[in-house]
Amino acid sequence: MAQTFEEISAADFFYRNRDIAGFTNPSRAIFAAVRELVENALDAAESLRMPPDVYIRLLFEGEAGKEAQIYRLRVEDNGIGVPPRHIPSAFAQVFFGSKYKLKQARGTFGLGGKMAILYGQITTHQPVSIVSSTGRARIYMYRLMIDIQRNRPLILDRKVLINKEGWRGTVVEFSLEGNYLRAMPKILEYFKQTALVNPYANLTFVDPKGRLYKFTRVTEKMPDLPEETLPHPYGVDVELLQRLIQVTPYRNMFEFIKNSFHRVGETTAHKFLEFSNIRPSKNPKKLSHEEIVRLMHMLKQYEEFLPPNAGCLSPLGEELLKVGIMKELKPEFVAVCQRRPATYAGHPFITEVAIAYGGEVPKKGDFIVCRFANRIPLLYDEASDVSVRVIKSMNWRRYKVTPDMPIAIFVHICSTKIPYKTVGKEFIADRPEVKKEILNGIREVARKLRRFLTRREHVDRERKRMGIFSKYLPKIARFSTELAGEEKPPDIRKLIRSVKKFGEEV
Amino acid sequence: MAQTFEEISAADFFYRNRDIAGFTNPSRAIFAAVRELVENALDAAESLRMPPDVYIRLLFEGEAGKEAQIYRLRVEDNGIGVPPRHIPSAFAQVFFGSKYKLKQARGTFGLGGKMAILYGQITTHQPVSIVSSTGRARIYMYRLMIDIQRNRPLILDRKVLINKEGWRGTVVEFSLEGNYLRAMPKILEYFKQTALVNPYANLTFVDPKGRLYKFTRVTEKMPDLPEETLPHPYGVDVELLQRLIQVTPYRNMFEFIKNSFHRVGETTAHKFLEFSNIRPSKNPKKLSHEEIVRLMHMLKQYEEFLPPNAGCLSPLGEELLKVGIMKELKPEFVAVCQRRPATYAGHPFITEVAIAYGGEVPKKGDFIVCRFANRIPLLYDEASDVSVRVIKSMNWRRYKVTPDMPIAIFVHICSTKIPYKTVGKEFIADRPEVKKEILNGIREVARKLRRFLTRREHVDRERKRMGIFSKYLPKIARFSTELAGEEKPPDIRKLIRSVKKFGEEV
Repeated sequence: MAQTFEEISAADFFYRNRDIAGFTNPSRAIFAAVRELVENALDAAESLRMPPDVYIRLLFEGEAGKEAQIYRLRVEDNGIGVPPRHIPSAFAQVFFGSKYKLKQARGTFGLGGKMAILYGQITTHQPVSIVSSTGRARIYMYRLMIDIQRNRPLILDRKVLINKEGWRGTVVEFSLEGNYLRAMPKILEYFKQTALVNPYANLTFVDPKGRLYKFTRVTEKMPDLPEETLPHPYGVDVELLQRLIQVTPYRNMFEFIKNSFHRVGETTAHKFLEFSNIRPSKNPKKLSHEEIVRLMHMLKQYEEFLPPNAGCLSPLGEELLKVGIMKELKPEFVAVCQRRPATYAGHPFITEVAIAYGGEVPKKGDFIVCRFANRIPLLYDEASDVSVRVIKSMNWRRYKVTPDMPIAIFVHICSTKIPYKTVGKEFIADRPEVKKEILNGIREVARKLRRFLTRREHVDRERKRMGIFSKYLPKIARFSTELAGEEKPPDIRKLIRSVKKFGEEV
Repeated sequence: MAQTFEEISAADFFYRNRDIAGFTNPSRAIFAAVRELVENALDAAESLRMPPDVYIRLLFEGEAGKEAQIYRLRVEDNGIGVPPRHIPSAFAQVFFGSKYKLKQARGTFGLGGKMAILYGQITTHQPVSIVSSTGRARIYMYRLMIDIQRNRPLILDRKVLINKEGWRGTVVEFSLEGNYLRAMPKILEYFKQTALVNPYANLTFVDPKGRLYKFTRVTEKMPDLPEETLPHPYGVDVELLQRLIQVTPYRNMFEFIKNSFHRVGETTAHKFLEFSNIRPSKNPKKLSHEEIVRLMHMLKQYEEFLPPNAGCLSPLGEELLKVGIMKELKPEFVAVCQRRPATYAGHPFITEVAIAYGGEVPKKGDFIVCRFANRIPLLYDEASDVSVRVIKSMNWRRYKVTPDMPIAIFVHICSTKIPYKTVGKEFIADRPEVKKEILNGIREVARKLRRFLTRREHVDRERKRMGIFSKYLPKIARFSTELAGEEKPPDIRKLIRSVKKFGEEV
């Protein structure tokens, strides 16, 4: 019985398993490709604090079967550019990138753009062409393919141009199989929602029919740049601890603890070492395996560490979220809530939640749920998302809410690391800490909605009651007037006012 | 603005993104670990055509926080064993394995077992211990850890024993963080459903409380061993075509086409080359890029290729599926359907569907859906699975079915490659070809259910009608008898029989 063992490359793994990266069928593949490149483009501009200008064009190139066509996708940005020596690997090598950091970014796997390029290659066998400049004297042009079995870039062509106009940015262009007609609703919805949460970005999309969709920025104001941070002590595991010890320049535990973790200063470092009974002068490089495991448990047990700082995160803010929803849905009522920073596995995150009622919110027999993560809309596989699960688990009758009401719920999570469940970034895993924050956020806005609904109910009841008074009091007045033999009935407005419960509102 | 680029290893990628492999929280992690190792154990025995004996033990080792404990997991099998030189990489190197083949197996990513071991390492920092023998003279024992940053095994210890008793199999043992109490229902359900679709396996599970769960085999009969197959011409992409050309020993297109694809023989090869206007004597190694792309399109366009052969697949069979369901749920009605082999992206697959009504099927206000893939139950993230989406999209009123009926639907897909959406193998992507087969399968069993329900409705109506007849005919008979001055009423049984519509059944 022959058993053969082999090693495969990372590119080969994703080539064999494209479903796990979201490239399941021609319609989803073209959506994923557009989305991954747009997100890289937005990240590239934001990392320079430049309001992003992103231009996306899809050209029809030919039929490729019953359910698929060939398209040429071009995405241009005004971002930071890629240094020439990194261009080949950054675009044609899986698990190579600039995003393996503790910093809020749309891309997190360093994989999406490459998967799109890989998918283009295996469906059309065309190379990808990259033009990029960091704004200095030269512009670099590459034509690349991926050596999938070795996971290495193949450089087919390279040109260097003089950058006369000081252009900065990146252009990615390649061909791929897709089904634009089917993907169109999702792609347009993606642009719409992306524009909603990135109001400082210009997005221009030219579709295969030549139709132009323009989403113009409404503000030049950029959110604060997310910073790179140290890991929070509550989220370290043994592997991370070992890596921190490996790279630390410090030779004593006090300096190591003080300088390696998020929000740990002199006082906290001292107190923690005392709590865990570790000698401050001990050399971290000399900790045994057992001592490292113990240190990890101690870090998790010590309760005095400060919660993570939101400085490294860039939430939308309650105001922006509210404005965006008012603009899109014109609801009768909206409540927003930004939760305080929390942490899961050492990664800080902020949850923002909103609930909208009435107005243009459609009645679907179920709530509308809009999910965002690090300012990107999540449009697929909603049913498995942690937010949807939380919403389904709640007892909505407590909030006077029934499924037939026109209600939309918005959940935005921003984090240095979003716990996506799939490489295709379709939905978020149910980490208990994240679940709790979403639940508490939704409860808070749901309570506000209950107050609104209760008040409206009172108002309705009062309106009915006042309707009765207004109808019968004049009759009674007339009757009494006649009875008293008078001619002119008294002014009953004062009487009506006296039975009102809510002055102005009725 | 500093941008730093780096390459990370595959092990590092999954260390950073454990959510995508199903290791989201302590409860899900322990479930995933048990499941991955059990599946490897079953595969290891089946690849020898041995009825599997799998022993699983979880020991409580200590608390690890509020929501997690440390457990020691041990899984023993009587399988094929791992050759000693491959043991370190097979258990402690990501993307190394024996499963990267076109063959039906439970494991497909060569990743699950390693993720479990990696998760154990980062949560407890303990090495994994492996004991394995292929049944020859020696037994090999290893203690291993994973060098995550380099994705290489670290051998801490290695022992060789004499195999006096001719033992064959593998034992894997390591510690990990988990939450057994929370995971317990899913773990037990997993064993129950696994036993249901693997009736030739012995499963013994000892839980942390020392409780023994035994699932004993009911048959020694094993399904046919799945074979390794060639790719089907409809599913090739350019990358695969290039690889086939690279490794082929043949120097002309005729032999290349005849020997490289599933179900392509002499005649088909000739006809295809004629259809695609390719010279049979042409050397495949000399095809240009453009010619390879053209060849791929031709392979997809040619309509005369035979459908994939089910020989490489090992479905449950209608009988076994029915028996399993009858045993578990004792329904009033069950219909099963095995679809003919189909293909997606060149991978043959068979869909088996069953519907059960009444009996012990619980009424939940919604259908019960049991999903299986290559004889493993899928228990998480149901809402995103292609089967559930298909079921939701159907108009069930056409089948006289309402959501409040006690209905359970079973879907089993077996394939040389299941299009899982997540590395954690929780649910299947909606590949259009797979969707279609599931839809048609469910329609078929739903039609049978409709016949049953219609018939029962008729029977009910008839029973009511006959009830009326049986009540009033005797009265009329008595009345007529008296009217005629007779004493004994005539025998009306004949009359009643004559108005019956369904003879025996009432």
